[in-house]
Amino acid sequence: MQAVMTADEMMAFLEEVFPQVKSDFAIEEMDGTKTVMRLLTADRHLRPGGTVSGPSMFALADVSAYVATMARIGKQALAVTTGCSMDFMRKPEAGRDLIAVATLLKLGRTLSVTDILIYSEGKDDPVARASMTYSIPPAPKP
Amino acid sequence: MQAVMTADEMMAFLEEVFPQVKSDFAIEEMDGTKTVMRLLTADRHLRPGGTVSGPSMFALADVSAYVATMARIGKQALAVTTGCSMDFMRKPEAGRDLIAVATLLKLGRTLSVTDILIYSEGKDDPVARASMTYSIPPAPKP
Amino acid sequence: MQAVMTADEMMAFLEEVFPQVKSDFAIEEMDGTKTVMRLLTADRHLRPGGTVSGPSMFALADVSAYVATMARIGKQALAVTTGCSMDFMRKPEAGRDLIAVATLLKLGRTLSVTDILIYSEGKDDPVARASMTYSIPPAPKP
Amino acid sequence: MQAVMTADEMMAFLEEVFPQVKSDFAIEEMDGTKTVMRLLTADRHLRPGGTVSGPSMFALADVSAYVATMARIGKQALAVTTGCSMDFMRKPEAGRDLIAVATLLKLGRTLSVTDILIYSEGKDDPVARASMTYSIPPAPKP
Repeated sequence: MQAVMTADEMMAFLEEVFPQVKSDFAIEEMDGTKTVMRLLTADRHLRPGGTVSGPSMFALADVSAYVATMARIGKQALAVTTGCSMDFMRKPEAGRDLIAVATLLKLGRTLSVTDILIYSEGKDDPVARASMTYSIPPAPKP
Repeated sequence: MQAVMTADEMMAFLEEVFPQVKSDFAIEEMDGTKTVMRLLTADRHLRPGGTVSGPSMFALADVSAYVATMARIGKQALAVTTGCSMDFMRKPEAGRDLIAVATLLKLGRTLSVTDILIYSEGKDDPVARASMTYSIPPAPKP
Repeated sequence: MQAVMTADEMMAFLEEVFPQVKSDFAIEEMDGTKTVMRLLTADRHLRPGGTVSGPSMFALADVSAYVATMARIGKQALAVTTGCSMDFMRKPEAGRDLIAVATLLKLGRTLSVTDILIYSEGKDDPVARASMTYSIPPAPKP
Repeated sequence: MQAVMTADEMMAFLEEVFPQVKSDFAIEEMDGTKTVMRLLTADRHLRPGGTVSGPSMFALADVSAYVATMARIGKQALAVTTGCSMDFMRKPEAGRDLIAVATLLKLGRTLSVTDILIYSEGKDDPVARASMTYSIPPAPKP
């Protein structure tokens, strides 16, 4: 399925809505079903020991689900996360970016559900999994 | 990766531990990574309207994660579910079995994490997703 | 806050919508904020060893969230569970009913969120916790 | 139940392990069962519109569960989050700190489970709920 905008348009929109996004995240792939995003790992994302912190992984999963949803419905600044679950399964490797692979499982009238697997770049085993539910504001009356 | 026992050996073990399993579930595929299970949908699994009930979908996800874990570590009657999250995304179709596709994401020393997608047989869009964490009892001292 | 119907009216409604409810569950308390329900533990709810099964605990949490929501918005047969998370923390005691204490944390226009703690009757430590999200159908146009 | 160290000792430990903690969080109350923590809301925690971001609420829930667990078992720098679920229920109020009330539901040999409710300071309705599971490293052999 095709996305309703390009990755560049999406990135411009993200930067407008979340100014910190530009220095933290990059879109690697984006179509209407699957989205791949990168956390540009920097010191501020790390815990002692050099591993990426839980809140940074949450932020990566959250923005990936947002992008996966917007890729289908277009710009909706008011979409908000209503629920998430995460399992932290392995310690991310120090000195590597994280890659999130997000699959949109459902796009309903008022909710989207996205499944996310997070990897240390170049590794096969996921470091975390997440499910994110977004609430989509009702379309304006025509 | 190869499973440590056959589907028939697994089924015999399940029936020994959970006597109701035989009439409810069948193993369609089972290797060390991916497990596919079927809920043999019967009246007792249904809600009014003919759709499969939430507890029946929970039971299917739970047994699929159990089988996916046992396929790697062997018979462990004492493994227990410690956590789960589920999203119910679409109404299951009346009159169809449910098929669960379970992927073992992590097998650690004390925990396993399994991701499960549930489908109405023959349909492309999942009706539910689940993550199940099992606690694995420590191996006996040699 | 007061419930919009009595526990007897609620029970009659539940039995109409879910015929199996009568033999499985009882409403102990119900106001507009807090709901207490009992699982009338019987053989069909048990795992080998006499402990209550995961699917039976899921069913108890689910019906408790449903009742907690209906206690505020009235009869809505079409409300459906969209998400849940559970932690299974202790083994339920054999031979005791389970008691679920449900607190409605949010009642929005389209979603309710309920927190549930489940106890073996007469014990202080919860055996499980759950969060359940219900999707509420839009009110009919007047 | 009494905590095994004082709030000041806990805070000193947190700052040693997570240097950013001092400017972000304060411990309001801490005993062996219930922990209350404050997010000292600053610009870096906000989304456009002035509301606290999801990752900041995740971080607050996570540190609250960590403190609730350490309050009982003592300093364990190697305890790690293995699972979480969150429901975001209301928009936090702009210009207010967030207050997390954490209840330790289970403290086992290898896992702790903590329930967290997050409030905008001075408000009655929670903005979010979370459950956090920590994996506790085995005690060293004597």
